Amino acid sequence: MPDTSAAKAIEVAEESNEPKVGRKDKLEELCVNTIRFLAVDAVEKAKSGHPGTPMGMADMAYVLWTEFLRHDPQNPHWTNRDRFVLSAGHASMLLYSLLHLTGYPDMTLDELKNFRQWGSRTAGHPEYGHAPGIEVTTGPLGQGFANGVGMGLAAKMMAARFNSVGDRFQPVDHYIYAICSDGDLMEGISSEAASLAGHLGLGNLIYFYDDNNISIEGETRLAYSERVKRRFEAVGWHVQKIDGHDRDEIRKAIKKAQKVDDQPSLIIARTVIGWGSPKYHGTARAHGEPLGADEVKATKEALHWPAEPTFLVPDEARAEFERKTKKLTKAHGKWEEGFAEWRTRNAELAKEWDRYWNHSLPEGYEAQLLEAAKSDKAIATRALSGQVIQKLASIAPFVAGGSADLAPSTNTLIKDGGSIERPADDRSDPPKMDVFKGRNLHFGIREHAMGAMINGMTLYGSWRAYGATFLIFSDYMRPSVRLAALMNIPSIFVFTHDSVFLGEDGPTHQPIEHNWALRLIPNMTFFRPADGAEVAMAWAWAVGKAQGPTVFALTRQKLDPIPRGESFNPQDVWRGAYVLDGYKDGDITFIATGSEVPLAIKTADLLRNEGISARVVSAPCLNLFDEQDDSYRKEVLGDPSRIVAIEAGRSDGWFKYVSRDALVIGIDRFGASAPYEQIAEHLGFTPEKVAEKVRAWQGKM
Amino acid sequence: MPDTSAAKAIEVAEESNEPKVGRKDKLEELCVNTIRFLAVDAVEKAKSGHPGTPMGMADMAYVLWTEFLRHDPQNPHWTNRDRFVLSAGHASMLLYSLLHLTGYPDMTLDELKNFRQWGSRTAGHPEYGHAPGIEVTTGPLGQGFANGVGMGLAAKMMAARFNSVGDRFQPVDHYIYAICSDGDLMEGISSEAASLAGHLGLGNLIYFYDDNNISIEGETRLAYSERVKRRFEAVGWHVQKIDGHDRDEIRKAIKKAQKVDDQPSLIIARTVIGWGSPKYHGTARAHGEPLGADEVKATKEALHWPAEPTFLVPDEARAEFERKTKKLTKAHGKWEEGFAEWRTRNAELAKEWDRYWNHSLPEGYEAQLLEAAKSDKAIATRALSGQVIQKLASIAPFVAGGSADLAPSTNTLIKDGGSIERPADDRSDPPKMDVFKGRNLHFGIREHAMGAMINGMTLYGSWRAYGATFLIFSDYMRPSVRLAALMNIPSIFVFTHDSVFLGEDGPTHQPIEHNWALRLIPNMTFFRPADGAEVAMAWAWAVGKAQGPTVFALTRQKLDPIPRGESFNPQDVWRGAYVLDGYKDGDITFIATGSEVPLAIKTADLLRNEGISARVVSAPCLNLFDEQDDSYRKEVLGDPSRIVAIEAGRSDGWFKYVSRDALVIGIDRFGASAPYEQIAEHLGFTPEKVAEKVRAWQGKM
Repeated sequence: MPDTSAAKAIEVAEESNEPKVGRKDKLEELCVNTIRFLAVDAVEKAKSGHPGTPMGMADMAYVLWTEFLRHDPQNPHWTNRDRFVLSAGHASMLLYSLLHLTGYPDMTLDELKNFRQWGSRTAGHPEYGHAPGIEVTTGPLGQGFANGVGMGLAAKMMAARFNSVGDRFQPVDHYIYAICSDGDLMEGISSEAASLAGHLGLGNLIYFYDDNNISIEGETRLAYSERVKRRFEAVGWHVQKIDGHDRDEIRKAIKKAQKVDDQPSLIIARTVIGWGSPKYHGTARAHGEPLGADEVKATKEALHWPAEPTFLVPDEARAEFERKTKKLTKAHGKWEEGFAEWRTRNAELAKEWDRYWNHSLPEGYEAQLLEAAKSDKAIATRALSGQVIQKLASIAPFVAGGSADLAPSTNTLIKDGGSIERPADDRSDPPKMDVFKGRNLHFGIREHAMGAMINGMTLYGSWRAYGATFLIFSDYMRPSVRLAALMNIPSIFVFTHDSVFLGEDGPTHQPIEHNWALRLIPNMTFFRPADGAEVAMAWAWAVGKAQGPTVFALTRQKLDPIPRGESFNPQDVWRGAYVLDGYKDGDITFIATGSEVPLAIKTADLLRNEGISARVVSAPCLNLFDEQDDSYRKEVLGDPSRIVAIEAGRSDGWFKYVSRDALVIGIDRFGASAPYEQIAEHLGFTPEKVAEKVRAWQGKM
Repeated sequence: MPDTSAAKAIEVAEESNEPKVGRKDKLEELCVNTIRFLAVDAVEKAKSGHPGTPMGMADMAYVLWTEFLRHDPQNPHWTNRDRFVLSAGHASMLLYSLLHLTGYPDMTLDELKNFRQWGSRTAGHPEYGHAPGIEVTTGPLGQGFANGVGMGLAAKMMAARFNSVGDRFQPVDHYIYAICSDGDLMEGISSEAASLAGHLGLGNLIYFYDDNNISIEGETRLAYSERVKRRFEAVGWHVQKIDGHDRDEIRKAIKKAQKVDDQPSLIIARTVIGWGSPKYHGTARAHGEPLGADEVKATKEALHWPAEPTFLVPDEARAEFERKTKKLTKAHGKWEEGFAEWRTRNAELAKEWDRYWNHSLPEGYEAQLLEAAKSDKAIATRALSGQVIQKLASIAPFVAGGSADLAPSTNTLIKDGGSIERPADDRSDPPKMDVFKGRNLHFGIREHAMGAMINGMTLYGSWRAYGATFLIFSDYMRPSVRLAALMNIPSIFVFTHDSVFLGEDGPTHQPIEHNWALRLIPNMTFFRPADGAEVAMAWAWAVGKAQGPTVFALTRQKLDPIPRGESFNPQDVWRGAYVLDGYKDGDITFIATGSEVPLAIKTADLLRNEGISARVVSAPCLNLFDEQDDSYRKEVLGDPSRIVAIEAGRSDGWFKYVSRDALVIGIDRFGASAPYEQIAEHLGFTPEKVAEKVRAWQGKM
């Protein structure tokens, strides 16, 4: 048995008379160093990772996790837990160590020993779903910062609905804590999210900035000379500056931040990266690679830590973590008691509460959405989506969302949904709780923060949230869209103006490669619907079925309705592609998406008059189509060499479905600024032009 | 003939006794209103566009363009011209009007009348290349802001090389002016770029912020309550606040900003969107659609402008623009004189100057790069790229670049190139000119600003600039990469850690869809080289051949060298795909890119021992391959149903080249955190695993 008592450590510590920065007492120091050395040892064993940041952040993380963070390792999904976001995801071993030491059952010591190995819960960066207690996948910098803002907004919106002023119990009453690095603050997304958080006065946010002056290329002063305090004050944050190794200062700062109700809090904690390493502390060398055997030895010596065994958790430290966690966990028990009482006193509200957290939809909700999307005249799919959103909003109170300053164009406003905005006569005061009763969010021209905030709201648990902008600007928020897919969470992104047919705004606004660029993200469900039925079923999927993110690509321009016969089964939309009524037989098969489905139909009609019969397949979601069994896919596609695929975007991806001698009509160049009818004419997207191409292709066969 | 004299306008103006905000004199007012109504009429005729911002910005644009902007409409490419960036690209009619009124020959009145029509020079948003005087394509918000910072840096770097302290002539001595909107400032990219500009003390930047309180969803206070002045001061800018309709204040502010040498300048100009429109001024209604016939009439009445003819340029106004432009243009003549003298006095420096602006490369530079990239041991392509960069730096002084805080990992540091950074002992002072003699840029963790700044540097004209980060983070800068492609400018982006084989950092850092997501951008040249020869030729392309952007995808892990026979012609790399020496005949064809080329070779060797002979095609650049003639492509690919395509990324795109019954080995899931050899094993990217799949596939044939 290794000697896991602290005796030896404390013994050597006593021999030392070096002053310790912020050293409070030996037991506390022991606990903090336990965190440090679990990180050091894990990185060393994996021969890969980031030891410096966990070493530098250990003091603040220790104080936060043992004295403030209300969580319950045995019940990690307790709705009123404080959320902890490690925006500096490369410090993952800090989180894993804390999860282990505070008793999350899945985070065993063996998992720590398996850091960064195939199949472990302890990936290089924290991966949502790998273990309870990992609230969000982080690593791509700035994301966690904005995810936390989404969580804070989600909480405020729940509080506005379920807390009652003066009631002895408030079901929603917790904080969002985050630790951020220099990199998080340099990324533009954090400026966007900080601006919104300040604007909305999200007092439930308490963020630490690990101000260690070091980034990968060296000292941050190479590229960074912001006055961070002033920057955040300028956007409405409450800012404190502390010594990040002085645990008393940390305590005081958190207490003070908790008292600031009407502003998000930033605690700028001056720390030393690689704290404890005699050679590498305060240098970039401590950042992204193992310390190396010699320096591990030297560091352990310097901090009076036994060289062996590695992964040491002294009994005294373990007991102390246990004792303190138990104390924090009590908050959960107390909450459950209060909540049970509250449910009795508020039966109706309690039912509503359950609807939020279970995302309950009424039986036959698809039919209601289909009804809402009926239209017998030409209409844009963005307008149809707007109609569906109204119905959805009325049956699903947990649906909320907004746009990056394009709501009138994306048709995403919930009528009578209330706006989360400051009253016109209140420019200076922080917004009152009532403000958060709204369902329409205004993200400003900040797509990236919107994406990450939607992810944060989704992770929070009670919301099905959507964010909207033009499809072209999906590029601005792509890292967040990808993370929704990686986490496999049902974030919803509504992208309109989905092709060159948006017209006059021109190539800067016209998507070309975007359909495929989004479809290719794993776990993605990308819908490009062609009419009301497809729009409705896509929304039904997004709120009722989706595991991962759902993305909509919707038209700006009006589309003629698709004739729907008796045999149309709306559930076919969820198969991703299906043959249209009235176009089930033919020599060739048109396959198209969105605005090109009516085009395919018109072309088929035109050719039919010439004696060429064509099937028409609508393919609103190729991602779902890919998941169908082989026989269905073959049946739908027919002879792959007799296919004409049409989509107003890059053609390349279509060859997965069709033969190389099939005809793929796409757009493999940038668009142009002109009225959309002219663009259609010039780029060959009229029935006449398509028919011409089909004839030429037929001739070559 | 329409009455184009100002008589009528001035006549009605005299009847009015309303006070005009900032009205200086009638002629000036006439000129400003000419700008306003050209925009109003063009938007009205196009039935599409943004009238409100040109109307609101007209005063500042007028003062800037007629009294400060040193340009020469007859010689629009004069290197020492002031640059003007309309970051708020939706106000395109402002720019087109100014180009017309100041006499850019290509910007005729007919072009203004053709606003937003197919084939016109006057696209919905300003398109670089459509007409001289359009310095950069803008529209996607925030980009122009950061492009300007790149231009400012480019100018400082040129000044550091070619200006001499105390000399009577400074060849580089101009400003970068920009007009930005609320949206530009809300986008995270502007925070990133502003932080860098402040850090670098780019005193040659003079930016206007059109502070009109209006965005598409309504008043900006919906989502925006920043104290903008404090925000910019916090990151080192000099900030002034003025009335944007008071032309005297505008003059004074520009003069003051010109005197601030060591800080970028922001002039916050309070304006009224839709200025002059009785009904829509100061409202979102003025933003994004024509005023409508009635309101155009009312506006013309209110500003005492004749209702007819439309597109009126009063003779007095035209003469005044001509007079003032002529005065500004003199600066060019004077500069040319001074420059001619300077060349005589500085013959060597003048030669160097020409090298920069012509991007002159020595004869046979490709061979030199090839030599630099020679390696007979296993080596990562990022390391090979690092070797090539050293050679390139020595033969091409106009090559400069940097990384978003990953230079040690992206291998992009130019040794002995000097760093553009503040001296360690100078934290507070603005950097001195000497600082800009360096060639290594430090972007901090700001990928998006890096992308746009590289575009700005490239547009500046004298640089071939590169920006580097991990391939996964290309997502963070995708809008800028796309704009480089749309502008068809030779920006260079170096993306390393190009697959799951980066290993332990895990799925958040592992590209999957990125190869295709980048290849699908039109005008893109995406290289994924497999060895030193391919790396060298890719760089040779980027600096010597490229029209549009070149993107590199480079490995973190070491690759075994590819056997190169006598018949290898390096120029084949520029054909995008070619058959490898020693693997020219066979029953099946492997086609692979980057790290999968050595894998294909090993698998081919393994199968050869079993009696299956295989050709091996290396395909470093499918974009270039697509441009080859049909017969070459057929020759390289062989029988498309007998192809095994291997790439560590999404498989979907490959079916463009191979039959649907070919074997495509890709990765259609997210990656995993583990040592890369384990990942290769688990995902089937070892010679044994690939051979197994080939055998199974052969069996099915």
